[in-house]
Amino acid sequence: MNRLMLDLGIIKLASPGIFHLLPLGIRALEKLKSLIDKEMHKINAQRLALPALTPAELWEKTELFTLTDRHKNLYILSPTHEEAITDLLASIAPLSYKNFPLRLYQITSKYRDEMKSRFGLMRGRQFLMKDLYTFDIDMENAEQTYSEIIKSYENILTKLGIGFSQVLAATGNIGGLISHEFHYTADVGEDKLLFCSNCNYKGNVEISGQDYCPQCKSTKIIVRNGIEVAHTFLLGDKYSKSLNATYLDRNGLIANLQMGCYGLGISRILGAAVEVLSLEQELRWPLVLAPYKVVIIAPKGGSKEEVLTSGLDQELYDNIDKLDGYTGNILLDDRNHLTIGKRYLEARRMGYPYIIVIGSKATETNPLYELNEILTNKQHFLDKNELLQHFRSIQ
Amino acid sequence: MNRLMLDLGIIKLASPGIFHLLPLGIRALEKLKSLIDKEMHKINAQRLALPALTPAELWEKTELFTLTDRHKNLYILSPTHEEAITDLLASIAPLSYKNFPLRLYQITSKYRDEMKSRFGLMRGRQFLMKDLYTFDIDMENAEQTYSEIIKSYENILTKLGIGFSQVLAATGNIGGLISHEFHYTADVGEDKLLFCSNCNYKGNVEISGQDYCPQCKSTKIIVRNGIEVAHTFLLGDKYSKSLNATYLDRNGLIANLQMGCYGLGISRILGAAVEVLSLEQELRWPLVLAPYKVVIIAPKGGSKEEVLTSGLDQELYDNIDKLDGYTGNILLDDRNHLTIGKRYLEARRMGYPYIIVIGSKATETNPLYELNEILTNKQHFLDKNELLQHFRSIQ
Repeated sequence: MNRLMLDLGIIKLASPGIFHLLPLGIRALEKLKSLIDKEMHKINAQRLALPALTPAELWEKTELFTLTDRHKNLYILSPTHEEAITDLLASIAPLSYKNFPLRLYQITSKYRDEMKSRFGLMRGRQFLMKDLYTFDIDMENAEQTYSEIIKSYENILTKLGIGFSQVLAATGNIGGLISHEFHYTADVGEDKLLFCSNCNYKGNVEISGQDYCPQCKSTKIIVRNGIEVAHTFLLGDKYSKSLNATYLDRNGLIANLQMGCYGLGISRILGAAVEVLSLEQELRWPLVLAPYKVVIIAPKGGSKEEVLTSGLDQELYDNIDKLDGYTGNILLDDRNHLTIGKRYLEARRMGYPYIIVIGSKATETNPLYELNEILTNKQHFLDKNELLQHFRSIQ
Repeated sequence: MNRLMLDLGIIKLASPGIFHLLPLGIRALEKLKSLIDKEMHKINAQRLALPALTPAELWEKTELFTLTDRHKNLYILSPTHEEAITDLLASIAPLSYKNFPLRLYQITSKYRDEMKSRFGLMRGRQFLMKDLYTFDIDMENAEQTYSEIIKSYENILTKLGIGFSQVLAATGNIGGLISHEFHYTADVGEDKLLFCSNCNYKGNVEISGQDYCPQCKSTKIIVRNGIEVAHTFLLGDKYSKSLNATYLDRNGLIANLQMGCYGLGISRILGAAVEVLSLEQELRWPLVLAPYKVVIIAPKGGSKEEVLTSGLDQELYDNIDKLDGYTGNILLDDRNHLTIGKRYLEARRMGYPYIIVIGSKATETNPLYELNEILTNKQHFLDKNELLQHFRSIQ
């Protein structure tokens, strides 16, 4: 049974731009990772892990952490892995055309020596990123893959339940032929996005200016701030050519692979989602990421409710825990030296979507429980069967 | 459905002592992590993640990777987190005695600038470690916790099915009052362990010499090589005192917490288990870690078996995939341009514990499948129901 023990919280600053991820934060992150793993499985992407410590030979970029080992070899802490993965493919090249499309991704810590780290998890110096790399035999297949992955990223972001915009973006340092970003629009966002009401063009202003639409020249535009949560690149052969990642085509001839890369900011999504959804005094989680969906608050020790409802908290816990989608997602707050009121406020601050209070109506012959649905701001008094039916129906 | 696509393998050297973890390796690692999470849940341990990048102030050790950021601040890549976690507790001190025992663990990448990295995953420079830290209000409770965690670690290692020895160990750099190590005995092991046949004493020779038993002075001893897979320390107040991790006792007085720390080498266990179990030409996995439990080899394209067993591979896959413990753990090798023999050898090399071949007996009216149980070296011909019953019974 999950009992509310010491509540350490979600994140805590360790040093500038670097965070401890505390137990509730880890639970939310693991849910996000598992949601992504499921989507990646659907598109036949295989998971691997490339090391953070990377020999520095291939790199010439700012904002990198560099270090030398005891043998005076120069290393970097990788912020991204286009070179490493292309090198991996080159080391087993040439594979047959039959092995493609190939899709490989990882969910690992990345590093960037930001000039100014800020906005908590949204721009840290050590952060968790999911990066996917795709390999195809020609541009037609690579473009097809690019569309498929964008659809998959849309599925992931849709499941989080926060509105997002896909915009045209600059290819920048990573390079390639075309690039898109996914953004949450929010005042705190560091990017500026241009939306054209005339032709529906959407783009980051860094490629399009912000005076008129670069596609139809209309001035019927809206400019909003955005938090970038994903970035996709159709790379072509930029990396495969220079690093010799090749394959054997149907005629036995050697050709370069066509690549794409697709980043999804894991810790940033967590920070941004909470930033976009929360109220001043209360955290709000996307329902699928909430560290626990349900918290049960048991009566205060020594109260008449405690005596008259003895065992009901445990029974309720066990019943809800058996429901599809709730197993392991429910928490019993039986710290009964604290008042119900104090624990209720704390539960609201932490953003648990459903708070069940075992109060005075639970002492009746047919015990009624107080269900608080935080996201819709509704309160119901339900008996056990109604409560279980309610949870089943909203799943 | 899991189809065998391009088989990238398990691990690959990226640079000295640093590895790519490839898709099969990641699957085994994720299984190990999930097994550990379950055991940790049983003892009320909460998972968190402390950052690898740690300000260097507190550190004065060799074998550390150090780096400076753009502001010339010195950082290390942490090989362990006693200081960081104690600092975290100190930052919220003093908590009430009611919050203890408290058990916090993480499964994260750690770093060590080894003079000589070797033995693959067993002594890498970037490695995955699970480290648990415990906090108690007094030594009696701390000792109780220490015993409980050791039992939990025994449970984890027992589930992996490889014999292990728990020995007395030196407290070394980490310090503390008492320390134990868990070892797999193997020639390749870098530690020497002393086993006394007279009094049953077991210890690392680094604290006991190797001429006679340090406990009963008997010379009836055996010395074997061991691979250290876990290390436990009863720390006492070594860290809590210097970093001010305190609590309020029953009388409202401030006192120091008593700590323990417990490392489990995740990537090392993977490397060591495969090292201990494998044959020269064939990998062997602990059954609970095998990337996939079952592989089905479909007939070769253009063969009479392919025509006469059409659809059976898919049907078999779906049926086994529904069995408890097999869901997602089964792989269909339908690369039918390859002979059955070639795919069978490859499957053996990869160490899948159960290999099902759809061969000539599957063309009969009551199709029989060839089940190869690699760990027991047995071969059976079973019809579908017998096969499913067999898998149910060995689960």
